[in-house]
Amino acid sequence: MEPSLAIVGATGAVGREMLAVLEQRRFPHRELRLLASERSTGTTLRYCNEPHPVRALSAGSLDGVDLALFAAGGSVARDLAPAAAARGTTVIDNSSAFRLAPGVPLVVPEINPGALRSAPLKTPRDWPGIIANPNCSTILLLMALTPLRRAFGLERVVVSTYQAASGAGARGMDELTTQTRTALAGGEPRPSVFHEPYAFNLFSHNTAIDPRTGLNVEEQKIIDETRKIWDDPGLR
Amino acid sequence: MEPSLAIVGATGAVGREMLAVLEQRRFPHRELRLLASERSTGTTLRYCNEPHPVRALSAGSLDGVDLALFAAGGSVARDLAPAAAARGTTVIDNSSAFRLAPGVPLVVPEINPGALRSAPLKTPRDWPGIIANPNCSTILLLMALTPLRRAFGLERVVVSTYQAASGAGARGMDELTTQTRTALAGGEPRPSVFHEPYAFNLFSHNTAIDPRTGLNVEEQKIIDETRKIWDDPGLR
Repeated sequence: MEPSLAIVGATGAVGREMLAVLEQRRFPHRELRLLASERSTGTTLRYCNEPHPVRALSAGSLDGVDLALFAAGGSVARDLAPAAAARGTTVIDNSSAFRLAPGVPLVVPEINPGALRSAPLKTPRDWPGIIANPNCSTILLLMALTPLRRAFGLERVVVSTYQAASGAGARGMDELTTQTRTALAGGEPRPSVFHEPYAFNLFSHNTAIDPRTGLNVEEQKIIDETRKIWDDPGLR
Repeated sequence: MEPSLAIVGATGAVGREMLAVLEQRRFPHRELRLLASERSTGTTLRYCNEPHPVRALSAGSLDGVDLALFAAGGSVARDLAPAAAARGTTVIDNSSAFRLAPGVPLVVPEINPGALRSAPLKTPRDWPGIIANPNCSTILLLMALTPLRRAFGLERVVVSTYQAASGAGARGMDELTTQTRTALAGGEPRPSVFHEPYAFNLFSHNTAIDPRTGLNVEEQKIIDETRKIWDDPGLR
């Protein structure tokens, strides 16, 4: 039987992309639940040329769902994913909440699909309870480096990333647009989503810098996730 | 006697900064000639609260000048600097034209002032004929790394730079502003100064990539200039 699906955080920038990809791939499913915070209740999203209602997320809203795609940030994932997984839902989580948790597969399908194969995956019920999706920068980096690593081995990686406002979601993109209009009109942009003015600017990733290591959170994620995905804890 | 000065390319983004710095430092001089292409003739620039005429650059326009600051790009420097130097003018050139030429000091005053001291510098006539100023990225990089190199030594440098539209001068900044207005209005920005659309974008430095090394011209400059300034041809 085809699985019952849900997208948690369906109205955000990532949730909308997930919906578009499901449609584009004609992903097989019976039910498809679009869930978001109460703020979005009453919204409808188009899916396969039909309006699809967005429902408010609550403790029971994943009952009976086989596969839930979470695109709602770490705190929603921490609140809802473990309970849903315990009740039989497989959660594929886009946040950082469970990426480094022992026993949670951290998967880039092109790189380490084997991390999913600890059990034979015949029905959705055989899948792990929570599957974590790495940081976007980690995915792109490892797609480029994994073939080189297989061919030659890798001792140390030096990486610079150049990230877009969209990394902070739709709110981030709006702030960039608004600030840019303000700056072009001669005004002073006022940061809200980001710590720094964004218009015509470039700054360290919008996360705290650990005074001990000098790394911001994004840099630490790339290091930790790469080591886990490659199963290479000593990688420099 | 105080030297006679000239700024070649006085109306460009860099030339105007040079003029502002001379004023700010009350740089001693008798004459100050502001020179630019014929396009700028008739322009006046303010210097110490006085309008100062800009004259058209020609073969004879550096006659009698002791110290000429060139901010006019490589081809103007190649056309005029050697002849001026042969007639006794010291040229301090901001372009890449002579940076790697043997015998031309490539100087960051805080780092390798000794490169100027091959002759005792008592009068302007004792100075070298052409003194080259490094690429802006090289200067900033070496200001940070030179103290570390002195303290610990350096075997290898991995560097990423994040460069602004102003690297391409006033025309580059104008193109960024114009394209951004176009993009915000929903239009399609058309690149002219840069090879790529600049609005809300990030791309490899606007110079050719050498297919043999994979390096763009800016990257090759930073490598070559660093090796020359540190006198360390084997630096990785």
